[in-house]
Amino acid sequence: MTKADVQLVRALADKRGRTEHGLFVAEGEKLIGELRGSHLRVHRIFALEGVFEGAGAETVTAREMERLSLLKTPSNSLALVEIPHYTLRPEALRGRLTLALDDVQNPGNMGTIVRLADWFGITDIVCSEATADCFNPKVVQATMGAILRVRVHYTDLAALLAETSAYGLPVYGTFLEGENIDEAELSDDGIILMGNEGRGITPVAARHVTRKLFIPPYPADRRGSESLNVAMATGIVCAAFRRQTVSRQRE
Amino acid sequence: MTKADVQLVRALADKRGRTEHGLFVAEGEKLIGELRGSHLRVHRIFALEGVFEGAGAETVTAREMERLSLLKTPSNSLALVEIPHYTLRPEALRGRLTLALDDVQNPGNMGTIVRLADWFGITDIVCSEATADCFNPKVVQATMGAILRVRVHYTDLAALLAETSAYGLPVYGTFLEGENIDEAELSDDGIILMGNEGRGITPVAARHVTRKLFIPPYPADRRGSESLNVAMATGIVCAAFRRQTVSRQRE
Repeated sequence: MTKADVQLVRALADKRGRTEHGLFVAEGEKLIGELRGSHLRVHRIFALEGVFEGAGAETVTAREMERLSLLKTPSNSLALVEIPHYTLRPEALRGRLTLALDDVQNPGNMGTIVRLADWFGITDIVCSEATADCFNPKVVQATMGAILRVRVHYTDLAALLAETSAYGLPVYGTFLEGENIDEAELSDDGIILMGNEGRGITPVAARHVTRKLFIPPYPADRRGSESLNVAMATGIVCAAFRRQTVSRQRE
Repeated sequence: MTKADVQLVRALADKRGRTEHGLFVAEGEKLIGELRGSHLRVHRIFALEGVFEGAGAETVTAREMERLSLLKTPSNSLALVEIPHYTLRPEALRGRLTLALDDVQNPGNMGTIVRLADWFGITDIVCSEATADCFNPKVVQATMGAILRVRVHYTDLAALLAETSAYGLPVYGTFLEGENIDEAELSDDGIILMGNEGRGITPVAARHVTRKLFIPPYPADRRGSESLNVAMATGIVCAAFRRQTVSRQRE
């Protein structure tokens, strides 16, 4: 392990460095093991003795790992992985459920959303350019491997929504004045648009929303509560969509 | 503002210091404003000039606030608030829905759970002694004021569950082998038990679970996904309970 390696890993903590090198950092034996078995290309692995031996890992001491690691508690291995580039054709979003994130800022929320998308079988997340980078080390670790299965796209979100509307795909968004999600009929396909933690959905994206939904508090006339966290709201909305789809499949 | 004030605030970052002084730290004008209007007792307020004037705030400079603040981005005000002590009578849990946390460790998850409890009208959360402290500054900030409305109790959880079972209160828990929550009949009252991020529900608490539930992935036979984050699972479970209660109320 060289000084340049430490500098490289440090550089990958920032989006600029990741873009420049085309790499992201993943830490931990379980996650790296999953990465090695996936379509992603693992570029280099730094590991303590006995970990990923025979897998071309570069052996480092515990002390060196402490210098390398971006985590508070260093793991036994750290990999540099090539950032995948996915192509998104708007017409490919027909017939399935897709998440759209409009400037979600917090890496923790981003990681949680990627993880729940994986749970609910949502394979693509389309994001505005200002949305938190899914290859931020905090996001990668928070997704618990879901980042291998869910494709995250960064694009001009309003333009994309305009394109998908040409295919008649419904766009759902949560708004205070929306329809109670527990009483709404939810389609098997469409786009679920979620907004920024503080500002919600931007007006330019909101113009494309065709169905406004609302997660009811309990009791329904309850006052004083803050809104739900965006990741939490996304999970509750996805669960509601999938429940209705499964219920229809059984009929 | 004295050196002792800075030391006091630093001490309150840790549970030991909070227990010793009987105080916790809240930051930001909105949160402190809500605290002042609540049943909680605000002990002292440090604020920039013009903030909380006439409310007995001690004026500090931006530089002093930087030294005081426990946040990455200091706010314009910081309050020391007396930690409330609530009495919990097991029989009081009859006829309503209560959350029970079995060693939830992560302050972020704890804050999210307090916030969603508030949203879903759950007024009490009972926690094992090892559960993250709800007066941890990260939790206080993450709850967005919900900490004023939700009472969090720390107790011998297994003993409490044994007591409530004497009242015939159902205890729900999520388990991989549980009943599909979308097909389960959920009562208006009971205890929803949620486990630790890594280990799940401890065997000693699991013995008291009377109804095992499961949040289905999509599609139902999906493999490879990690489980949902505990806060996310709690939100989806609470939403399911409240939906059924509201649906029955309408019949």
